[in-house]
Amino acid sequence: MSLSSYLSAFDDRDWETDASGTVRFALVGLGWWTVDEALPAVADSDFCEATVFVSSSREKARDVAADVDTAAAALTYEAFHDGAASGEYDAVYVCTPNATHLEFTRTAAELGKDVLTEKPMEATAPRAAEMVRVCEAEDVALAVGYRMQTEPVIRRVRDLVRDGVIGDPRFVHSENTQRLLDIFADPDQWRLDPELTGYGSSVMDLGIYSINTTRFLLDADPVAVQATMRSEHDAFDDVPDERAALLVEYEGGVDATFTTSQRAHDGSYLELTGTDGRVRIEPAFHMETDFRLTVDDRTVDVDTPTTNQMTEIFDYAAHGFLTDTPLELDGAHGLVDMQTVAAAHAAAGRGERVRVDEK
Amino acid sequence: MSLSSYLSAFDDRDWETDASGTVRFALVGLGWWTVDEALPAVADSDFCEATVFVSSSREKARDVAADVDTAAAALTYEAFHDGAASGEYDAVYVCTPNATHLEFTRTAAELGKDVLTEKPMEATAPRAAEMVRVCEAEDVALAVGYRMQTEPVIRRVRDLVRDGVIGDPRFVHSENTQRLLDIFADPDQWRLDPELTGYGSSVMDLGIYSINTTRFLLDADPVAVQATMRSEHDAFDDVPDERAALLVEYEGGVDATFTTSQRAHDGSYLELTGTDGRVRIEPAFHMETDFRLTVDDRTVDVDTPTTNQMTEIFDYAAHGFLTDTPLELDGAHGLVDMQTVAAAHAAAGRGERVRVDEK
Repeated sequence: MSLSSYLSAFDDRDWETDASGTVRFALVGLGWWTVDEALPAVADSDFCEATVFVSSSREKARDVAADVDTAAAALTYEAFHDGAASGEYDAVYVCTPNATHLEFTRTAAELGKDVLTEKPMEATAPRAAEMVRVCEAEDVALAVGYRMQTEPVIRRVRDLVRDGVIGDPRFVHSENTQRLLDIFADPDQWRLDPELTGYGSSVMDLGIYSINTTRFLLDADPVAVQATMRSEHDAFDDVPDERAALLVEYEGGVDATFTTSQRAHDGSYLELTGTDGRVRIEPAFHMETDFRLTVDDRTVDVDTPTTNQMTEIFDYAAHGFLTDTPLELDGAHGLVDMQTVAAAHAAAGRGERVRVDEK
Repeated sequence: MSLSSYLSAFDDRDWETDASGTVRFALVGLGWWTVDEALPAVADSDFCEATVFVSSSREKARDVAADVDTAAAALTYEAFHDGAASGEYDAVYVCTPNATHLEFTRTAAELGKDVLTEKPMEATAPRAAEMVRVCEAEDVALAVGYRMQTEPVIRRVRDLVRDGVIGDPRFVHSENTQRLLDIFADPDQWRLDPELTGYGSSVMDLGIYSINTTRFLLDADPVAVQATMRSEHDAFDDVPDERAALLVEYEGGVDATFTTSQRAHDGSYLELTGTDGRVRIEPAFHMETDFRLTVDDRTVDVDTPTTNQMTEIFDYAAHGFLTDTPLELDGAHGLVDMQTVAAAHAAAGRGERVRVDEK
């Protein structure tokens, strides 16, 4: 393959068939991510339409719906749970605090709607397992919004790894850090409230990108975790991990180290070393992504146009819902990340290696 | 300071005084590193001269000495221990298998000679502690050849860290990997023999660069270690760490992750993230070194001419010997790395966090 044909096919959707159709979405939780990122992404999508808007406040739901041509209903959470306007949507996008994903997923499943939920799946692994159970019981699809998995750069890096370009994978180093209090100044926000965030803050919110993207690139799951966690700033008094460092062993014998902080220089990268070379993805996790490949003493920098990661994940999920195709990022897949986060917190607390399948 | 004055002063020796003089070195162990790296470095140095050559074979010692104008004697190890030609040298450079450093250091100390030993100090922490003891007892200086500490790039990065340019340090990611069997094909080499190498292979030989350079950059010592080690290839049957991944907590609350392998893509880097920015040193540990600094959304790549790291470390040690200046990289300093490596091996074996000061 020539370099130019490689680049021209770079962002082809290798998962897309010639199926067509539209999935009408109810958007549940109308915070800034839904309004600023998800809604424009759906408008740009091939397979999705936003028809129903669900918020804690009817007024907010109406305000958001007012600007959308395809809007059919604006609901409170209560009305949603009562099944209002359920003829107006085929699937539900859940973008609410972690500990509320289960209740919205349960209602959606009981109404026969497929679900795309934001990551992390829920506040705890048992609640994530219950999400999987209710969706299986009602025979609806459950997708977790791991948008890295449908980001063309990450898919092309996986192709390289699968093709053995860097040899046998050995190590991953990855970091995902931000300044949460610069983004949301309120110390009472839900990401710092254990009732709503779950196990903690930085690993649930940021470290999960490193954990999950490594699974995707290696096609291997975490086996055991060692970890260190620290909270120093007052705002993080109720969560153990203002910042964290994890050493995660993956199937196949790859050792990965992940660092994450809610109060550090804003940045992200993932670097994977094999027996024959190394690939570095940077920036890695924040809507813009490029990579550098080194094999022996040859290096290639690949800098491609930014793809709308939210459009890709919405279309991937909707295409799966329409064609009944099994999704790589389904609930059972997401549950493993929740179990890994749980193991990381247990490991940091006990100062010892904890297996992900520890009961 | 302007960028141009920064660059023009980049490799100034901030440790050098206007002292002058020459330290005559006995070079002990005439393997490729001594012959191809140390000897030319000494020839280029300001404060050093190579006068005595010591090898297991008298013939080899004579062969090496024959090409050196300043040569005064060629000795076997036995003759060295007997004190032969001790009037011809002022200090000893030890570059032999790890487990033999103590005996050469003891002889040197008893002869009143200062010592510059290669890293790691010895095969085990107790033997390294004994080196410190004998040098103190005989009132001679003991320096460990951590050439990163006198590499201008590393010193300038330390300046940046000390000046708070990246804010408070939070995380370090570092990797040091090579293909040992491509460098030395013989599976019976000393680096794979626990009697000579000590605790293991990759952490003792390679990982120690990450451990020590991080100490130097942070001006902080390791507190506790978690680790994973693996050996897969037959040649590594007798050592636990063909490869290893370490999670090391440093004083001041910095979490560092280090990976190292004797059988992976040849490369090295060290990346330090703070609250305000990040600095990446790459390549980091192999005679050539550059760095990239990112603060907020501004990035600077600093690419400077390669300094001969061996000339710098020889002159730094010799300048210290001549002026009786305390050396940052003395025996007590090196001992902490040996204790950290010991803790890493214990941690990997037990699957738990081990304190570096564990007795």
